[in-house]
Amino acid sequence: MTRDEIDALDAADPLAPMRARFALPDGVIYLDGNSLGALPRDTGAAMADMVSRQWGDRLIRSWNEGWIDAPTRLGGKIAPLVGAATDEVIVGDSTSANLFKALVAALRIDPARRVVVSEAGNFPTDLHVAEGAVACVPGAMLKVVPRGEVLAALGPDTAVLMLTHVHYKTAERFDMPSVTATAQAAGAVMLWDLSHSAGAVAVELDAANADLAVGCTYKYLNGGPGAPAYLYVARRWQERLASPLSGWMGHAAPFAFADGYEPAPGMKRWLAGTPPMLAMAALETGLDLWASVDRAAVWAKSAALWRIMAAAGEAAGLECVTPADAAARGSHISFRHPDAHALTQALIERGVIGDFRDPDVLRLGLTPLYLSHRDVWQAGEILGEIVRSGMYREERFGERLAVT
Amino acid sequence: MTRDEIDALDAADPLAPMRARFALPDGVIYLDGNSLGALPRDTGAAMADMVSRQWGDRLIRSWNEGWIDAPTRLGGKIAPLVGAATDEVIVGDSTSANLFKALVAALRIDPARRVVVSEAGNFPTDLHVAEGAVACVPGAMLKVVPRGEVLAALGPDTAVLMLTHVHYKTAERFDMPSVTATAQAAGAVMLWDLSHSAGAVAVELDAANADLAVGCTYKYLNGGPGAPAYLYVARRWQERLASPLSGWMGHAAPFAFADGYEPAPGMKRWLAGTPPMLAMAALETGLDLWASVDRAAVWAKSAALWRIMAAAGEAAGLECVTPADAAARGSHISFRHPDAHALTQALIERGVIGDFRDPDVLRLGLTPLYLSHRDVWQAGEILGEIVRSGMYREERFGERLAVT
Repeated sequence: MTRDEIDALDAADPLAPMRARFALPDGVIYLDGNSLGALPRDTGAAMADMVSRQWGDRLIRSWNEGWIDAPTRLGGKIAPLVGAATDEVIVGDSTSANLFKALVAALRIDPARRVVVSEAGNFPTDLHVAEGAVACVPGAMLKVVPRGEVLAALGPDTAVLMLTHVHYKTAERFDMPSVTATAQAAGAVMLWDLSHSAGAVAVELDAANADLAVGCTYKYLNGGPGAPAYLYVARRWQERLASPLSGWMGHAAPFAFADGYEPAPGMKRWLAGTPPMLAMAALETGLDLWASVDRAAVWAKSAALWRIMAAAGEAAGLECVTPADAAARGSHISFRHPDAHALTQALIERGVIGDFRDPDVLRLGLTPLYLSHRDVWQAGEILGEIVRSGMYREERFGERLAVT
Repeated sequence: MTRDEIDALDAADPLAPMRARFALPDGVIYLDGNSLGALPRDTGAAMADMVSRQWGDRLIRSWNEGWIDAPTRLGGKIAPLVGAATDEVIVGDSTSANLFKALVAALRIDPARRVVVSEAGNFPTDLHVAEGAVACVPGAMLKVVPRGEVLAALGPDTAVLMLTHVHYKTAERFDMPSVTATAQAAGAVMLWDLSHSAGAVAVELDAANADLAVGCTYKYLNGGPGAPAYLYVARRWQERLASPLSGWMGHAAPFAFADGYEPAPGMKRWLAGTPPMLAMAALETGLDLWASVDRAAVWAKSAALWRIMAAAGEAAGLECVTPADAAARGSHISFRHPDAHALTQALIERGVIGDFRDPDVLRLGLTPLYLSHRDVWQAGEILGEIVRSGMYREERFGERLAVT
């Protein structure tokens, strides 16, 4: 595509005004919003209000003035982004902790089913947490198989099929309805990790008849670094499952101060400790941005941005490991290259922030809310120049970037 | 004491300058810092820096610029407040989640020891979480006995004695060295909850030879509502225990993205998911305040404030349920009264914020960093007026205040 064609896409982009709602540094094209989403402009004021007024001035009274309901209120704001009902999602703890809760609860449904099946190369914390969860249920075990064999691995002993909907490295996307149906036909509970899906691609948990899901809010939902995660439990399971992390905020009557634990009805039973309200306030600002967005336009733009970068990668002779079919991928694109780490660093030196995933993947996140077609096109031009010039081979770069 | 005597105490108070480091609303005497600590004046600027510069401008790069080490760095700042070495404390997750990790890990030490002993009327989440933890270890059970019987309940099957050092309601304080020694003599691991202790009274975990401890940071440590909690593991246990919540941040090499879990050395293995950095930033500001404080002066002032309020309560004919012996209590004072809820509400109407604990306790937190002797004396005068006038009986008050 020519630069004029790219500019025409931006001129016709219904999401273009959203860019002004984010604070991004000058001179940077940020292709790492799938790792840490950009800062919404409203977040600073929301945090100042949280700190000065809600905490400083109202103090303990704020618990009765909106704080105590934040986990369910924020869950309700995530629900439309994942195709759930507002009373099926709650916000709290980390994705890892929520995975643990969901896995242990699901492993307790049927004593004859004790196996968690998942994919080799899944995002590490999913497998690490599953190791921890199976150790908490007598006889339970974790079965990790290659991606192509997960459905064949289901059997009469399978309790849970745990998969990440969009792969953190390759962006490969499972077909949620058919995989869910296959897992359930085998008698297993389907648990989805939506960390790279929500806010990136269409997700319809209820329509797919999913059982459980978790996800992170600091990527496409722009909740801030380490923002609290969410948990989805399909309504039909809500009174049948309980959290192994049975803390007071999940008690049916947390302020009656009873010694015995009684799980709250609905989603509140999945809460454990007191929610980190400062982090919750930032997350709520990120979620509120989504309320005004035409989600179909987001999914369409995500696909369009992807095609621009795919073309640039192809022109540079890079091996793309992300599927070309838009329905089979998320909103990032990954290239395999033996010098992927040096390429990543060279891009950063030129103002294009992407990231490197061990051992050989350059990963570029394409976030439709604040990237223009021109941004992605320009990043593609820079990528092409770096590859063609071979400058990345100089390898004079510092420490590897850290967090997904 | 006369008002002049009170003012003389303030004039001689080495901590008096600390009051200016906090933002407190006008017209309020805040006696609920044992529930939600007041806002340090520096927190607003720290949050603005975290939001605008670290998140907004530096974006993902901030993980390499201080974020990734925050859990151990903040743990190191808490360590001197609890008498621990800097490499024995880590910050992350909630107190409830940390209790869960510590309990499950301790229950796995010796298959012959499967009982968690704790106190009836302990802070509810401790008992609730213990219920959840014992359900994760085959054969484990929770034994809850009256306070006076906890040591007698220890036996050859006891795995853990879990106690809250300072009781959330009555402020009764266990003698940490002797209780720890008794538990260990019985072959049990000693787990302390320091939520109402750290920043309120002297705590010497290492000197007491404690094994494990957890605590909350949003009370006397002024970390903000729902601020991340901490976990202490004595050095001798660190390589022997592992977290059941085995998330990627606790992995020996979190960015190698290996499928298999390998716990990090030292305290990092207790991390699970990505830490909520906005909440961590606020907490760090609260902790930094403590660095400049003469802690012995804090413990002494805590006791002095308590005597002022105890005298006011006695003059008003209230039943004090907190021990008179300073070494046997924390930094709050509780009065039992059949109309305790109405009393609490009447105090709030008069600008004195304390709190009510079910069913009949008025609880007043006496935080030495930002309360003057005059504040506490004046609150005591108001309490006396309310009790004597009987105005609290009008019961025209709204909803009960919520959170501990």
